[in-house]
Amino acid sequence: MKNYFRKEISGMSGYVPGEQPKMDNLVKLNTNENPYPPSPAVAEVLRTFDSAMLRRYPDPMADQLRDAIAARFGARRSNIVIGNGSDDILTMVFRAFTAPGLPMAMLRPSYSLYAELAAMQGARVIDIRLELPDFSLPENLLETASDANLLIITRPNAPTGNSFSRILIENICRKFDGMVLIDEAYADFADDNCMDFALRFDNVIVMRTFSKSYSLAGIRLGYAVASEPVVEGLMKLKDSYNSDALAQAVGLAAFMDREHLENNCRKIIAERSRLTAGLRGLGFAVVESQSNFLFASPCDGDGGRCFEELRRRAVVTRYFPGETTGRYVRITVGSPAENDRVLECLREIYAR
Amino acid sequence: MKNYFRKEISGMSGYVPGEQPKMDNLVKLNTNENPYPPSPAVAEVLRTFDSAMLRRYPDPMADQLRDAIAARFGARRSNIVIGNGSDDILTMVFRAFTAPGLPMAMLRPSYSLYAELAAMQGARVIDIRLELPDFSLPENLLETASDANLLIITRPNAPTGNSFSRILIENICRKFDGMVLIDEAYADFADDNCMDFALRFDNVIVMRTFSKSYSLAGIRLGYAVASEPVVEGLMKLKDSYNSDALAQAVGLAAFMDREHLENNCRKIIAERSRLTAGLRGLGFAVVESQSNFLFASPCDGDGGRCFEELRRRAVVTRYFPGETTGRYVRITVGSPAENDRVLECLREIYAR
Repeated sequence: MKNYFRKEISGMSGYVPGEQPKMDNLVKLNTNENPYPPSPAVAEVLRTFDSAMLRRYPDPMADQLRDAIAARFGARRSNIVIGNGSDDILTMVFRAFTAPGLPMAMLRPSYSLYAELAAMQGARVIDIRLELPDFSLPENLLETASDANLLIITRPNAPTGNSFSRILIENICRKFDGMVLIDEAYADFADDNCMDFALRFDNVIVMRTFSKSYSLAGIRLGYAVASEPVVEGLMKLKDSYNSDALAQAVGLAAFMDREHLENNCRKIIAERSRLTAGLRGLGFAVVESQSNFLFASPCDGDGGRCFEELRRRAVVTRYFPGETTGRYVRITVGSPAENDRVLECLREIYAR
Repeated sequence: MKNYFRKEISGMSGYVPGEQPKMDNLVKLNTNENPYPPSPAVAEVLRTFDSAMLRRYPDPMADQLRDAIAARFGARRSNIVIGNGSDDILTMVFRAFTAPGLPMAMLRPSYSLYAELAAMQGARVIDIRLELPDFSLPENLLETASDANLLIITRPNAPTGNSFSRILIENICRKFDGMVLIDEAYADFADDNCMDFALRFDNVIVMRTFSKSYSLAGIRLGYAVASEPVVEGLMKLKDSYNSDALAQAVGLAAFMDREHLENNCRKIIAERSRLTAGLRGLGFAVVESQSNFLFASPCDGDGGRCFEELRRRAVVTRYFPGETTGRYVRITVGSPAENDRVLECLREIYAR
């Protein structure tokens, strides 16, 4: 068969999302899902939603949700874009700011999807290697990224879980000659965030998701906050009706239940400390986490073996092959029982 | 502020979707929504859905839904891609097959979003002007489109509502040196369709939506059927989790209720005939429709005036300015009461 695909697409292998395995007694700690259910307000929305209204298109702008988000951050509706998950926001951002002559700079290691999105655009990727052993930002970051039109800072970072100083990021936003996207998918689990930069700098986009802290990975909802001209440009790239009526209603209900969010995050942060201590007790090197997962390296430095041995015990984590990342496994912080199970398995695996 | 957008995006005005007006006693016939509610199975899914499961990512491949669609058309799971609405499928298709050196050919008049998607890609648009007065395919179509890498046939066409001979389309699919996308958004209201071409030709994609015949515009669900290599390529461009868990569940329930779909379409087709006759009785020229809307031109040839006068009476239709299209209004076939109201208003507007 003749191939009509753009050469950039034919040459790609494509991003592989974390597996959704089907096993008995599965302990699924591989995609940073929340161990707790979403706000009870979500169930109420589903129970009372008038399905007859689904015959209508949803609000293309999701204004109710944008207004609620704007009010929370002291922004205006015109500062907010809603996405079908933050992947959808990423797609808009890459189509807006990357091209064969417009490279993108990203941290390494970080979320590998960014590089796939750049490949789709035919854009060069500039790697910014984090400093070992703690995966901190390199001093020459601005110099390394100087050719890029888009710089992505993932804060807290994935898969490493750590964060970076706000002052450093602020300085980067001020000095970088291009757009800065701060991916704050895990910010609700962190001590601080950079949301205010989106409103103070014309060239900054801050992105959030409902998938992690709101326990709503299933509905696909994310948003970006940025200056009005940037939002206006991103809107041109948005599918007209990218967020569906149910997602908008469910997301709004969850967003307004701030108490549920905060309790939920508090519980996960407490478990994060307990799991970190437990892993360190077993000889693991654990990166200081500001997210809902841990990047942990067993004493033999063999992340692959750790992943496989856990998987054999129906505990599914994430393993990223590579010289540095291959020394680690990424473990989502689960429920107390799930975390106990992880520690129990690891004691068994690393017992002498 | 400095502009970091790609020049193609800065130069675009952006697609404007049909308005979602807020008026009392509104008769909304502007975006081809279905006047009837979706299958009762949809309400049941919402009522019984376990909201706790929303903390999990949805099936990234939507395999249950793909299997159901494949079974219906004698295809395989690997022939199907699910989209967040068919707009999402269009985005994948444009990113796959159009670029500055890879033009796209489309009918005129047709769905103007195609041209916006081409602009985002920096791809040239080749216009294929339909023949007046019946908006039929021009004889030189293949010649006109010969430089294109992607040819879109909208069948039935929008906003004109008419269809084209299957034999003509088959011939085009066989001879065109590039991808052919057949947009069958309205096929369930037509006498026939071209789904089998997607399985017989390597270079054909047939696209469908749940927004019209399934009364599910609110959930955003569409799909494409194509050969395996084409589906494989499109998958690389798909957001990993583009279709949410609720949309997949609701869509599957609606898809399996074939009786509801068929009854619903039958009612709309009957009303389409009645509304066509009523309009013709008032002196309108009405294009023979195979869809759930009518493209109708008042005797004075002033579509803009007709649109405005109807809007003043809270009947919202769609008007497309332009030398040819400006002579028409596009009216969605509504419920019997809504269609009566349209005819009543028009009698008032065009009374002497």
